[in-house]
Amino acid sequence: MRLQPAKAWSTSVSDHRAVRVVDTLCRGSGQVMFQNNPVTGILFIIGIWWGSTRAGEWEVGLGAVVGLVVSTCTAWLLGFDAQSRGQGIYGFNGILVGAALPSFLHVDARLWVYLVVGAAVSTVVMQAISNIFDTWGVTAMTAPFVITTWFLVLGAFAFANVGDASLPKAALPQPPSTPDYDFGVLTTVEILFKNVAQVFLIENVVTGIIFVVALAVSSWAAAVASLLGSALALGTAVLLGASADSTESGLFGFSAVLTAIALGTVFYSPGWRVAAFAALGVIFTVIVQGALDAALDPIGIPTFTMPFVLATWLFLIPHEKFRPIHHDPHKRKFAAQADTE
Amino acid sequence: MRLQPAKAWSTSVSDHRAVRVVDTLCRGSGQVMFQNNPVTGILFIIGIWWGSTRAGEWEVGLGAVVGLVVSTCTAWLLGFDAQSRGQGIYGFNGILVGAALPSFLHVDARLWVYLVVGAAVSTVVMQAISNIFDTWGVTAMTAPFVITTWFLVLGAFAFANVGDASLPKAALPQPPSTPDYDFGVLTTVEILFKNVAQVFLIENVVTGIIFVVALAVSSWAAAVASLLGSALALGTAVLLGASADSTESGLFGFSAVLTAIALGTVFYSPGWRVAAFAALGVIFTVIVQGALDAALDPIGIPTFTMPFVLATWLFLIPHEKFRPIHHDPHKRKFAAQADTE
Amino acid sequence: MRLQPAKAWSTSVSDHRAVRVVDTLCRGSGQVMFQNNPVTGILFIIGIWWGSTRAGEWEVGLGAVVGLVVSTCTAWLLGFDAQSRGQGIYGFNGILVGAALPSFLHVDARLWVYLVVGAAVSTVVMQAISNIFDTWGVTAMTAPFVITTWFLVLGAFAFANVGDASLPKAALPQPPSTPDYDFGVLTTVEILFKNVAQVFLIENVVTGIIFVVALAVSSWAAAVASLLGSALALGTAVLLGASADSTESGLFGFSAVLTAIALGTVFYSPGWRVAAFAALGVIFTVIVQGALDAALDPIGIPTFTMPFVLATWLFLIPHEKFRPIHHDPHKRKFAAQADTE
Repeated sequence: MRLQPAKAWSTSVSDHRAVRVVDTLCRGSGQVMFQNNPVTGILFIIGIWWGSTRAGEWEVGLGAVVGLVVSTCTAWLLGFDAQSRGQGIYGFNGILVGAALPSFLHVDARLWVYLVVGAAVSTVVMQAISNIFDTWGVTAMTAPFVITTWFLVLGAFAFANVGDASLPKAALPQPPSTPDYDFGVLTTVEILFKNVAQVFLIENVVTGIIFVVALAVSSWAAAVASLLGSALALGTAVLLGASADSTESGLFGFSAVLTAIALGTVFYSPGWRVAAFAALGVIFTVIVQGALDAALDPIGIPTFTMPFVLATWLFLIPHEKFRPIHHDPHKRKFAAQADTE
Repeated sequence: MRLQPAKAWSTSVSDHRAVRVVDTLCRGSGQVMFQNNPVTGILFIIGIWWGSTRAGEWEVGLGAVVGLVVSTCTAWLLGFDAQSRGQGIYGFNGILVGAALPSFLHVDARLWVYLVVGAAVSTVVMQAISNIFDTWGVTAMTAPFVITTWFLVLGAFAFANVGDASLPKAALPQPPSTPDYDFGVLTTVEILFKNVAQVFLIENVVTGIIFVVALAVSSWAAAVASLLGSALALGTAVLLGASADSTESGLFGFSAVLTAIALGTVFYSPGWRVAAFAALGVIFTVIVQGALDAALDPIGIPTFTMPFVLATWLFLIPHEKFRPIHHDPHKRKFAAQADTE
Repeated sequence: MRLQPAKAWSTSVSDHRAVRVVDTLCRGSGQVMFQNNPVTGILFIIGIWWGSTRAGEWEVGLGAVVGLVVSTCTAWLLGFDAQSRGQGIYGFNGILVGAALPSFLHVDARLWVYLVVGAAVSTVVMQAISNIFDTWGVTAMTAPFVITTWFLVLGAFAFANVGDASLPKAALPQPPSTPDYDFGVLTTVEILFKNVAQVFLIENVVTGIIFVVALAVSSWAAAVASLLGSALALGTAVLLGASADSTESGLFGFSAVLTAIALGTVFYSPGWRVAAFAALGVIFTVIVQGALDAALDPIGIPTFTMPFVLATWLFLIPHEKFRPIHHDPHKRKFAAQADTE
């Protein structure tokens, strides 16, 4: 990608403040799938607009852009690290908050105020979660988006002016019925791309294709990992007997796609052992997806990308240190003893 | 406050053990709102007694004192840091445990044993949570109180001798009905003070006034922040459409009051930017209050001050480091690779 | 235990790879109760087989061994620390995953695949949780087992091919009815041993006796602590009015037994003050057991050993540092201020 246009762009970025702002915002979009690349980011936004307008929900596309702008501006107002800001690190949670709220809550003027507050808060939460997980050498992933948005959508149960539109109804989890898969080749291919599209909460095949192309622009490995992760997630979901509807909508795949990109191409150096490790991570992500779906049933909120976050944290934190504390040699002094001895 | 009486008091404290004990206990009470000041603490206790006896629940006042004494003594028996103990750091969770249990559980002889165990445990939990959050340069806030008390009141569902008195009934969260606010000026002013009183689980206007005076004795800024936070929380709750009953009882304000004091006056140096940041924190606290109310519906326990704790942690942890780990330059070696290379 | 056979064994271990593997696996079994001793481990496995075959559930015994082997092999494949592996540190969560799944899920061929995946994941989770809690100088305890198995059994609500066999039905928690204890001396003694047996999810008196003997082989203190903890837990449960059935099955005692061993003999140097501290920890563990039972009611999963893990972490983390951050002297610079000043 170090072609002439890329060079010209990076010259403009340093010369013109307006270009820099656009560059920052696009990178924020790209960072949702770990890509520090403005072209990837702009393609993601195009994919979101395509999918959301097709579904008659243009507010999702607008929300995403508003969330992106607000969260990035908040980082600037709070004086958070300029280099990170320039890489879009403070934008990728905001764009997801902005896409999620109009997807699940009733859209009216008040929602936009709520969305602006939520996107601003997501930047603070991003820095907090980053500082916490920095302790173990891992990033915040999309946890700030999930945590912030959980609070915001739960508000629909507490606040009359925060209207629920399509949240799942709170209910006790029930044993599943046997699924009746009826996936031909075409449906299967569609699911592979829907799994990718659902990273931004969009159920649209073309959006998924645009997203994979966007990844390829920045990293071939990431594009391949996204489709392999998608395929492995689909296979795992079918073998486990996940709900046919959810599987077909891509809801058992989007977290797994992120896990595959993160473990397989971003945080570990690729290789056969890493591939096997990432595959185990993807399979585990599908299990966590089903488990969290059930665990959240009684409070009627979606998991968002938390299955990805949990699985990836658990598979990434070991990277730093592979030697746990042993059980026996740790005879600690008791406080009071230390005092009196 | 460095008047003659203050000087005389601090001389007595160093000279007389009994005075020192009283001083420690009063500071423990004051630390619930971050004030290391014995006069503030004694006024808090007076406010609790006023409110609880007015409501015919003198056991709440007694429980608070017992919890304060037991938790502080536990720190002494365990040999925990003497300086912290002298500042009341080991008392402020115990006083809240002691006030909360008789408010929600059936009061009989057995409750007092349960309360003593709970207050003692809260000191251990205080030190554990302190050590954990010290990693990111923030304090335990009232998390030890909340965690300990959640376990204790959940016991009402498991143990026949722990009788529930006024816990919310376990139920799936439901969409709220449209509130019908009927707040005149007088009611509004009352709510402002009830929001402060509810920090100690008391719904009483006079108690709230006493608490604000108690804050002013130690810090004008804290007193002002408590009322500004209270007002902002009330406005936010009404704009969001929170339940009229809960809003009028001060249940959407007490956590926000603590957030306002903590972010606005204790942990950051006051200024306009901090004021704006604290205001965002207060608004977010109200949202978290509604969200946690809904999330805890299925297990029928109150949030206590957890909305304050979560919001304040998230808004405080960024203070140390404003530069997250970036996504790209972190190619980690995989364990097995490091081994074999 | 430094007799001739012990010496002969350790010579074989260094000389023969096959013996080393058996030694590692047995130590992994022993580490469930913190004993780095292969004889203890083999006796634990014998106890599991005795109890599970008596109950007509030989799959539990087989699952335990499969889980132990898979989790240990995973650590080897991933290149995790060899010394820790040799001490069985990577086996004790896997053996529990392997015993738990056939106890609660429908057993068929697919379950064994699920179990192998789960046991492999438990090793990754073990390293992640170890790295996290190493920050505060404490070990992962059995948290990796609990977290992994929670995800796996929750899968029964999401996946048609993961069949629930004996999970509790998801339900809102209800106030308990008054228990009618009818425990003679014999029943009481039986409960003391069932409390120990339930550490491995087995309800069998002989298994409990075998486990206590196994502990005594490695550490007299641990054996004594297990029975004292068991007795104190039984007394606490009865005084609190816990369900008669659950108490008699040992379900209010197994976590307490682990807490007693951990706090009383492993992590603090024994003494009267530690004994009192451990006793408070055991009482608290029983309360947490009841609380978590209620909290998990709406999602229909068992607590496993989480009450032990939470109580022991909270009682252990204070060991390192007994001085919390104080409230007042922490006037932090606000990010943006630091930037502009």
